[in-house]
Amino acid sequence: MLHFENDYNKGAHPVVLEALLASNDQPESGYGTDQFTQDAVSLIRELTQCPQAEVFLLTGGTQTNQLVIDTMLAPYEGVIAADTGHVSTHEAGAIEFTGHKVLSLPHELGKISAQQVATYLERFYADGNHSHMVYPGMVYISHPTEYGTLYSREELEALSEVCRAYQIPLFLDGARLVYGLAVENAVDLPIIAELTDVFYLGGTKAGLLCGEALVFTKQNRPKHFMTQVKQHGALLAKGRLLGVQFKALLEHGLYEKIGQDAIARANELKSLLQEKGYQLYLDSPTNQQFVIISNDRLKQLGEQVVYSFWEAYDEEHTVIRLATSWSTTPEDIEALKEVL
Amino acid sequence: MLHFENDYNKGAHPVVLEALLASNDQPESGYGTDQFTQDAVSLIRELTQCPQAEVFLLTGGTQTNQLVIDTMLAPYEGVIAADTGHVSTHEAGAIEFTGHKVLSLPHELGKISAQQVATYLERFYADGNHSHMVYPGMVYISHPTEYGTLYSREELEALSEVCRAYQIPLFLDGARLVYGLAVENAVDLPIIAELTDVFYLGGTKAGLLCGEALVFTKQNRPKHFMTQVKQHGALLAKGRLLGVQFKALLEHGLYEKIGQDAIARANELKSLLQEKGYQLYLDSPTNQQFVIISNDRLKQLGEQVVYSFWEAYDEEHTVIRLATSWSTTPEDIEALKEVL
Amino acid sequence: MLHFENDYNKGAHPVVLEALLASNDQPESGYGTDQFTQDAVSLIRELTQCPQAEVFLLTGGTQTNQLVIDTMLAPYEGVIAADTGHVSTHEAGAIEFTGHKVLSLPHELGKISAQQVATYLERFYADGNHSHMVYPGMVYISHPTEYGTLYSREELEALSEVCRAYQIPLFLDGARLVYGLAVENAVDLPIIAELTDVFYLGGTKAGLLCGEALVFTKQNRPKHFMTQVKQHGALLAKGRLLGVQFKALLEHGLYEKIGQDAIARANELKSLLQEKGYQLYLDSPTNQQFVIISNDRLKQLGEQVVYSFWEAYDEEHTVIRLATSWSTTPEDIEALKEVL
Amino acid sequence: MLHFENDYNKGAHPVVLEALLASNDQPESGYGTDQFTQDAVSLIRELTQCPQAEVFLLTGGTQTNQLVIDTMLAPYEGVIAADTGHVSTHEAGAIEFTGHKVLSLPHELGKISAQQVATYLERFYADGNHSHMVYPGMVYISHPTEYGTLYSREELEALSEVCRAYQIPLFLDGARLVYGLAVENAVDLPIIAELTDVFYLGGTKAGLLCGEALVFTKQNRPKHFMTQVKQHGALLAKGRLLGVQFKALLEHGLYEKIGQDAIARANELKSLLQEKGYQLYLDSPTNQQFVIISNDRLKQLGEQVVYSFWEAYDEEHTVIRLATSWSTTPEDIEALKEVL
Repeated sequence: MLHFENDYNKGAHPVVLEALLASNDQPESGYGTDQFTQDAVSLIRELTQCPQAEVFLLTGGTQTNQLVIDTMLAPYEGVIAADTGHVSTHEAGAIEFTGHKVLSLPHELGKISAQQVATYLERFYADGNHSHMVYPGMVYISHPTEYGTLYSREELEALSEVCRAYQIPLFLDGARLVYGLAVENAVDLPIIAELTDVFYLGGTKAGLLCGEALVFTKQNRPKHFMTQVKQHGALLAKGRLLGVQFKALLEHGLYEKIGQDAIARANELKSLLQEKGYQLYLDSPTNQQFVIISNDRLKQLGEQVVYSFWEAYDEEHTVIRLATSWSTTPEDIEALKEVL
Repeated sequence: MLHFENDYNKGAHPVVLEALLASNDQPESGYGTDQFTQDAVSLIRELTQCPQAEVFLLTGGTQTNQLVIDTMLAPYEGVIAADTGHVSTHEAGAIEFTGHKVLSLPHELGKISAQQVATYLERFYADGNHSHMVYPGMVYISHPTEYGTLYSREELEALSEVCRAYQIPLFLDGARLVYGLAVENAVDLPIIAELTDVFYLGGTKAGLLCGEALVFTKQNRPKHFMTQVKQHGALLAKGRLLGVQFKALLEHGLYEKIGQDAIARANELKSLLQEKGYQLYLDSPTNQQFVIISNDRLKQLGEQVVYSFWEAYDEEHTVIRLATSWSTTPEDIEALKEVL
Repeated sequence: MLHFENDYNKGAHPVVLEALLASNDQPESGYGTDQFTQDAVSLIRELTQCPQAEVFLLTGGTQTNQLVIDTMLAPYEGVIAADTGHVSTHEAGAIEFTGHKVLSLPHELGKISAQQVATYLERFYADGNHSHMVYPGMVYISHPTEYGTLYSREELEALSEVCRAYQIPLFLDGARLVYGLAVENAVDLPIIAELTDVFYLGGTKAGLLCGEALVFTKQNRPKHFMTQVKQHGALLAKGRLLGVQFKALLEHGLYEKIGQDAIARANELKSLLQEKGYQLYLDSPTNQQFVIISNDRLKQLGEQVVYSFWEAYDEEHTVIRLATSWSTTPEDIEALKEVL
Repeated sequence: MLHFENDYNKGAHPVVLEALLASNDQPESGYGTDQFTQDAVSLIRELTQCPQAEVFLLTGGTQTNQLVIDTMLAPYEGVIAADTGHVSTHEAGAIEFTGHKVLSLPHELGKISAQQVATYLERFYADGNHSHMVYPGMVYISHPTEYGTLYSREELEALSEVCRAYQIPLFLDGARLVYGLAVENAVDLPIIAELTDVFYLGGTKAGLLCGEALVFTKQNRPKHFMTQVKQHGALLAKGRLLGVQFKALLEHGLYEKIGQDAIARANELKSLLQEKGYQLYLDSPTNQQFVIISNDRLKQLGEQVVYSFWEAYDEEHTVIRLATSWSTTPEDIEALKEVL
């Protein structure tokens, strides 16, 4: 079988595994106070050109979203997000579990615009009755989005401006950021660090066994953050597991290389799909490609390719996702060519 | 420096690392649905002689405690625990975070007795006013306890009987269970599976990079448990990380060997301490040893040995913890002998 | 000034006040265990023709919504509601505060249809990925709705049928039920008790100082409900305050009379508005009337009439609400006629 | 039967009822924005000599405790309280429901001392591991306590000093404050307002149908407090119900008179008990008296007097509570004399 179902179906990038082996016998203190974590933090400060960044390494994406939103919002605040945002739909209510409403706006290709957010905020504060409503206290975006799309620099700047005008943080979910950074003309890490108040750089989908690097960019780390991580059940005893991996990922350009390779494979995949006459559901520049496929054809394809069901398109067609990743080889693409 | 501060200061047992390497390229589905996890589950069912066991692999101990307590209790229930229990003191309020009170009882050497629990429950239901009180809905014990002590079979049976009489589950926190099982005459896994309703078998302190294996023994898994794990932010995308490690830990007797070696080292440590005239704070049969030491001597010791501060004993003495683990070698004990 | 802003701007109906006076010196036990509350419960069982009804008297509407939803849902479930539903918009996130997501559907005149709900549920269970989503565990409707509209018997039956098919409760928020019952051909209390699983009969807007009567119709009261009320901070020490008032409201046909009088006044108001050429925003059969009015005219009107701002209609028009209630007299309508 | 079981077994003080009647037809805005509430707030500012006081009228005691603690604490903080404190034992876990741990200290006659609190705080911050613990964020005391005892001015000053040193608020639960103020040499309202950061003045037990007046004394009202009240389900639509009652209670010295009368009755009761040879459980200066009584005698007494069971004293004796209140008459005491 050919595996294109997602970007987390294998273990870790070999360089990451080697780093785990190499560091294994070194005794370290727990809970993220180890030297490897410190090194990873330094690397992130450099790569983001944000020397004051406060960085925490966490295990997974939903965990990180829940922690950021719960600890940065006041209890009476909710978070604005696209109705297709991960926090809106696929986290089993993890945000509401901590008491906060997701205030969803209709997406366009997975994105929300500064104009939408501004209108929402204006109307909210225009209405004299807002004391009985949930205060909008943050804007959440994913980049790449759940549809693989990216915010342009102008779009991010406009969102950032609205957030600053209303003094609410802009939070960027970068679970797949590695693939967003590698796209031509895409915003880079220093721009993201500048325009957002908090974001994370995903490791799980970038070749780590697990791990997300959370970055507070404006000296705005919630008070006693480590205690709050512990309280949420999210503090890893062997924080070194995250530190060692992120250090390996971020050193020597591995991170950039992983992104570039996967995007090269994605572009080959996209060309291949178009050549073969498949209809793309939308134009995604990143590692996730969404294809409209007839149910008959899908049945055949499923015998040779593992894909992700996305949604029903109509009675006779389905939208599927095919993803490349750090582990996708040119040979995988060649093999796919044979069966498409 | 000699490292005796805890049992999680190194990476993973070499066999576990090898298993990660060996499995790395095999594509697997996510969220704990992979083959390795299934294999680990089968091994646990065998080792516990509990074929109906429902097993979930989680990342850390506080996370597991929070999930078990929150998902097994009704909203109006609290959990009975020793006042020294991990959930009572060192989880930053993770249990209360999910809405449940910890109903603490005074410990004796880290343990609570069936008699204490029975008295608490009798008084609770004797008092006609209990509709304004928190209902006791579970008993939590740690085994080994936070003081390294163990429940005897008779003690466990008595606790189990009280819990069954009141129809509340008995939950055993086995973060260090590997070291408890290796002690002579200690209760074994089948007995634990029989006498408790839910327990976990700790991996983090047994030579894994991370991981706790949660076992529901009485077909009493909370409904939609995976969704609740996700809602708590505790579901790992690459569940294989846990599956591969637990499979390696539980195969071929590694688990037993790790426990036996660490207990052998602990017994050597204990003898050494007694030979050298150190006063033990209490008689722990497991891998954690608690020593009363003068503050002057401690200062010297700290130059060569990394230990854990436990608590002040009096103005001039301190209680410290020295721990052995899967990674402690006979050479480490020899070296310690030189400096004690 | 003429007061048409809402249905809770005065104290209590004189009969209710008299009952408070008459009962004042009788000693009673607390927390809803008093004789008056028992009498009110009996009256509700009779009026609903539901002898097995389990009834609890609570203080306010948001409190009641929060309690019903939180105690009837499993922790991983959310509640389906119209996007204009009170729980969706005007309760400051009281539902999310207790950990549950409001799954909102687009309203039509404040209502949701059985078809919408069925489609939502079908799609939810059709999608294999629902383990990462919030389970729909209840349907919430308000009757009358926030726009004054009513569900027909057929509409309620269809909603009830869908809920039963999926084994989730149907919850009817009857904060203004007194005014809904008085409308010609509207569903009556026995029908509501039969078709819903839980509902409440609002007192605050029906001439009480405070109070909502919560009715579980299917022997489905959540376990230890009084304890959960206490835990939510919602248990009144002098439960008699609610018992006395509801007894007075429900005896001797006062409840029906209040509804009939207010609807008579509302119909006069509606005719008056139409005679004077005002444009109704929608056709509400109950005590709340929504009027589109030019901003200039509104300014004048505001000098003599207290109304509720509802929403901006366009640049030059506003939607306002005018409400009648138990305290609106024919003279009030006459006076309004002069100034409209 | 003679009623001495508690201080909330009758309706409202006649003056309060009259005020409800007199105000009934006056239209008022909702949610605590009415004129009566404003008047009550002014009266409280005068009586407390605290012109900057921010006052909110709420319905009940547990509700008020829950709101104060949840809105003033950071999410990672708990509240220090006596183990006999109302929040520790008789609120069905209402504090933990909102995510906060009650950090209980052993009481002495229902009280905790500044020394106990200081020791707790010192040890907490002395221990380097406190990042895994619940931060102590507030001190809760009840005055009178659950045992009817009072804090002296010196005791309050000392508690206040410790709290200020650690910059955490001192919260005084004054559910029965009316009876505490009337005791000779007791602290008065201005002193309480000065020494605490937040307190409430109970109405339910002082002759209101319901109501507690919450006072933030240091311009320290939590942000968007009304929204948080709504979010907790605690905002009354007809806030006038609370405003009218508190205005009546606090005007023209009624509040002081109620306290003085009840304390006079309590002193008569106490003398009576001592004359008749009953043994007091402790020396309470306020309206609650606790008596140790043989079970045989209690059975007889129960035929003529309604009392509150407090706790078993030993096999053959019981502690009961007898309470006076605003509604206890000299005739009630005379009648009790006959049957004791």
